[in-house]
Amino acid sequence: MNEALTQEQIQALVETANNGLFTANNTWMLVATVLVFIMHLGFATLEAGFVQKKNVVNILFKNAMIISVGILSYFLCGFNLMYPGEEFAGGFFGFAGFGVSPSPDYTPIAYTDGAYTYWTDFIFQAMFAATAATIVSGAVAERIKLESFLLFSIFLVTISYPITGMWQWGGGWLAELGFHDFAGSTLVHAVGGAAALVMAVLLGPRAGKYTKDGGINAIPGQSMPLAAIGVFLLWFGWFGFNGGSVLSGDPEGTSLVFVTTALAASAGAIGAFLTSYIMLKNYDLSMVLNGILGGLVGITAGADVIAPNLAILVGFVAGVIIPISIVFFDRMKVDDPVGATSVHLVCGIWGTLAVGLFGGKSFVAQLIGTFSVIAFTLVFSFIVGYAIKAIIGLRVSAEEEAKGLDIGEHAMIAYNRA
Amino acid sequence: MNEALTQEQIQALVETANNGLFTANNTWMLVATVLVFIMHLGFATLEAGFVQKKNVVNILFKNAMIISVGILSYFLCGFNLMYPGEEFAGGFFGFAGFGVSPSPDYTPIAYTDGAYTYWTDFIFQAMFAATAATIVSGAVAERIKLESFLLFSIFLVTISYPITGMWQWGGGWLAELGFHDFAGSTLVHAVGGAAALVMAVLLGPRAGKYTKDGGINAIPGQSMPLAAIGVFLLWFGWFGFNGGSVLSGDPEGTSLVFVTTALAASAGAIGAFLTSYIMLKNYDLSMVLNGILGGLVGITAGADVIAPNLAILVGFVAGVIIPISIVFFDRMKVDDPVGATSVHLVCGIWGTLAVGLFGGKSFVAQLIGTFSVIAFTLVFSFIVGYAIKAIIGLRVSAEEEAKGLDIGEHAMIAYNRA
Amino acid sequence: MNEALTQEQIQALVETANNGLFTANNTWMLVATVLVFIMHLGFATLEAGFVQKKNVVNILFKNAMIISVGILSYFLCGFNLMYPGEEFAGGFFGFAGFGVSPSPDYTPIAYTDGAYTYWTDFIFQAMFAATAATIVSGAVAERIKLESFLLFSIFLVTISYPITGMWQWGGGWLAELGFHDFAGSTLVHAVGGAAALVMAVLLGPRAGKYTKDGGINAIPGQSMPLAAIGVFLLWFGWFGFNGGSVLSGDPEGTSLVFVTTALAASAGAIGAFLTSYIMLKNYDLSMVLNGILGGLVGITAGADVIAPNLAILVGFVAGVIIPISIVFFDRMKVDDPVGATSVHLVCGIWGTLAVGLFGGKSFVAQLIGTFSVIAFTLVFSFIVGYAIKAIIGLRVSAEEEAKGLDIGEHAMIAYNRA
Repeated sequence: MNEALTQEQIQALVETANNGLFTANNTWMLVATVLVFIMHLGFATLEAGFVQKKNVVNILFKNAMIISVGILSYFLCGFNLMYPGEEFAGGFFGFAGFGVSPSPDYTPIAYTDGAYTYWTDFIFQAMFAATAATIVSGAVAERIKLESFLLFSIFLVTISYPITGMWQWGGGWLAELGFHDFAGSTLVHAVGGAAALVMAVLLGPRAGKYTKDGGINAIPGQSMPLAAIGVFLLWFGWFGFNGGSVLSGDPEGTSLVFVTTALAASAGAIGAFLTSYIMLKNYDLSMVLNGILGGLVGITAGADVIAPNLAILVGFVAGVIIPISIVFFDRMKVDDPVGATSVHLVCGIWGTLAVGLFGGKSFVAQLIGTFSVIAFTLVFSFIVGYAIKAIIGLRVSAEEEAKGLDIGEHAMIAYNRA
Repeated sequence: MNEALTQEQIQALVETANNGLFTANNTWMLVATVLVFIMHLGFATLEAGFVQKKNVVNILFKNAMIISVGILSYFLCGFNLMYPGEEFAGGFFGFAGFGVSPSPDYTPIAYTDGAYTYWTDFIFQAMFAATAATIVSGAVAERIKLESFLLFSIFLVTISYPITGMWQWGGGWLAELGFHDFAGSTLVHAVGGAAALVMAVLLGPRAGKYTKDGGINAIPGQSMPLAAIGVFLLWFGWFGFNGGSVLSGDPEGTSLVFVTTALAASAGAIGAFLTSYIMLKNYDLSMVLNGILGGLVGITAGADVIAPNLAILVGFVAGVIIPISIVFFDRMKVDDPVGATSVHLVCGIWGTLAVGLFGGKSFVAQLIGTFSVIAFTLVFSFIVGYAIKAIIGLRVSAEEEAKGLDIGEHAMIAYNRA
Repeated sequence: MNEALTQEQIQALVETANNGLFTANNTWMLVATVLVFIMHLGFATLEAGFVQKKNVVNILFKNAMIISVGILSYFLCGFNLMYPGEEFAGGFFGFAGFGVSPSPDYTPIAYTDGAYTYWTDFIFQAMFAATAATIVSGAVAERIKLESFLLFSIFLVTISYPITGMWQWGGGWLAELGFHDFAGSTLVHAVGGAAALVMAVLLGPRAGKYTKDGGINAIPGQSMPLAAIGVFLLWFGWFGFNGGSVLSGDPEGTSLVFVTTALAASAGAIGAFLTSYIMLKNYDLSMVLNGILGGLVGITAGADVIAPNLAILVGFVAGVIIPISIVFFDRMKVDDPVGATSVHLVCGIWGTLAVGLFGGKSFVAQLIGTFSVIAFTLVFSFIVGYAIKAIIGLRVSAEEEAKGLDIGEHAMIAYNRA
């Protein structure tokens, strides 16, 4: 045997073995990337289903632009702000320069740990970054100016999201504190949800949503099938969102994450089903769909460290939260057509804190991390949103809102079925 | 060379090589899992397309609940009933206890063959189990009470499906007999289809479907695009359903299964196209869509052992069966709004028997396996369905059926497009 | 250590290492295959969204048949025409016989390079082939006879597409010339687009599209959500279309392709957004959606050799081209309901030439390859299309066109929502 393998054969064997593991890991990361990508279709159809018929083209337009603008912004600036590497300074802020390239001639470079390449890292992260902006679009639907929305999104993806993301995933002060946010209950979802809340408040409610005598009008969505397609696609993509956050194809890590993610989503449906039945005395499809999303957001922070039976509990509580939170924000006259604030902000907070309760991490660190990230995002969003409001305005005219943004901004309608 | 590698380097090399293969295999199984997951969206949109507008919210609600209830039921009980392991008794029944865990602290454990982890096994199987229940929902659409349907589904996923599944996949008496059902033409599809048939009969037809003078009214589906989306998504997911049933990423096995699956689906479309043209004198989209599904169900039992040219034959025959079977059940006054019985039960039987004809397996074993599993399911479904009917009732009131289940059960409508 | 590993252990180690890499590579190719498969749903929904309500069943029917007929045709003849192997003759034409099998008993055979099996190769290529035919269906929508379309598609997939494909990918004269078309800007997209152009011209415009006094009537699509779903699904699938064209899971190659693909699509959206805003003074959703597709088609030829920052430029120019080209063809009275010619032919040409500008390849070779392939396809399509027109006719009757093809060819309607 020792005679059998030459020095070259040994070398080839080592290379093949390393390459096999590297290829398997990187393949999983690319699969996760396409799964996160399709979440953007999930958001698009969910939001298109929950808005009124007259604003469908507008919401589709925003979603098609957001993924595009998001990827480009993150390429031009966001990635190097989130992962400043050696340019790092003080744990709070760092920047590795505009554009993305591991080398002047864009040669791909494999990371030394053999898990994935530089470009895989970038594209997986870019899909994440665009998610945060997409969350906002649901909450501000049916009344925001297109250019104001796009401007806000660029600021969010290019500056705010990467800075707070760096605090943890870029190796900043939260990482040193012991904060644990596996795939971003706080760093992605609560960030998107907090920005959504600020913008929904700055915009004010849709015309006719709240009456002067304190009444609340339900404004039903135009297509429940589209909304359901959205939620299923989001769940589908979430296996990549959480599964890819293992940052390799490690069999034990990825498969545990699949189980906790699926169980929490399922339990979220049950939690919202029971709670909404008790509160509203019927089987409310919107609540169950949002319950699934709530369960998914809830488990995202701890999908790697929470045991499956406890993942059911985390998801179930998130599902219970959904109808309560949606009703609460409605009573507070915060008009959020798709429930983005309840799903992403409230369940994001719950999920991050749950890691302190059930995931063996410091509850204090979870508390500090959650609230510092949210506080930064609230302040940043308020400043940027307020500036946009002051300079070019946030809201379409009352006539355009009444007629619909599809005609007003796009000169077309969603359905031609005369 | 021998000098070049130390003992530690050899150890690391062996680990890397094992880990590479393990990771590649497990990654494929997780990809297959997400593909089977999205079949549930396929069922949801297929059924939402084929029902009437007034029952769309209801069918979406059922599909969102079924995947959730199915995963949780399978976690709590089904998995350990289907794979009882050492708790096995007699080849007909075994149970490894409530809940799922390879160890008290939920540590993931890799199977020794290096193909996938314990958790991968569970989540892949859980997606399968939920499928069986989903098949039922199409056949009983537009008239079943929501809580009766959910109750029946829980019994099916928790008890019936795992028991017959264990007979073969859990190492029971059918496995010993030499029965071959690769990915479940019988164990999943005929089981779902048989339960669907029993429930459709127990429920009776939709009001107005069959007239007193023997006439049959077509009740056209509300959205052909949704139905087509469903079929494409099911085909998409089926690559994971069949491909994942290789239970590893073995290149030869998985790629052969892809080819037989794609060819059978394609031939199913052609078979249904020609047969329905001869029978009905037009190009019937519903028949072609169901022909694709029939081809897929048909090849599922033998996708690993049937040669590609014969896979075309198996799929083509399944496609021919579809219009004949659908017309047959309609004449028998079995009202199945989506054709689930024809697709899953009839083509499931055909596919399983075809393994005895073209796959080199014992035809007698295929016959025994098919009919024993179906007989068990029919009896089980009848007992449970009858009991539910007697105790809480199966069917909504005539007024609710006329008005639609969306208003009656959910107080909302699918489309708001005034 | 040397004592530690026996001859058998060494042998097992080498096998495990080889198998790990092989499995990882093949798994990626199968993932890419399912992603290309779902592009067919993308085409189906895109086209269903852009046609009129009365022709939706027809376009869905065509798309369901095309994928089926395409896979079977490619199995029966196309694959062996495109990859004639040793049967090769002269660089222009070769044929390895009817049917596909590496051996008389269909045993799967692994290629010696360990990247993927024979069956993986076939099924990945089959999904590609069907794409070319699908591209045509959008351009000829709303007026072509179903049987004429299917007949044309069979000729295209069985004969024309494989012959020009062989020139490059089968090792023919263009490959020897140094032509570079990574994943088929020309070989797939421009081929489909050229065939689409010929057939659109042979058919003539839809009734009422162009008035006698030179006016152009917009015929708006029936569902913008369906169109948007289509574009997102196409983008999703394109990660497999381009990523799989690496022909292995090579981490550096696949991840670079992901980045260039995503950046070009995003920049295509921006290019079309700005250009259509300047030209049309509103935010045109159709243009942005087609801009994304244009960016994707544009980068397809050079996704492996164009640096990411230049990929942005390639995609942006493609996006700029889209509104200009669509308006141009409309003025030329070429009626293409979905813009397939602009997206696939024009951006396909641009993308292939761009490899000569930005990808370090010979511009002359790119020019020769692009125009020879397109010239062959135009001539072939004209001959076949003209023959079909002469023998059985291409176009439905004026009454059927007015009433809609859904009633005329299928005796059903797309939506039943009375």
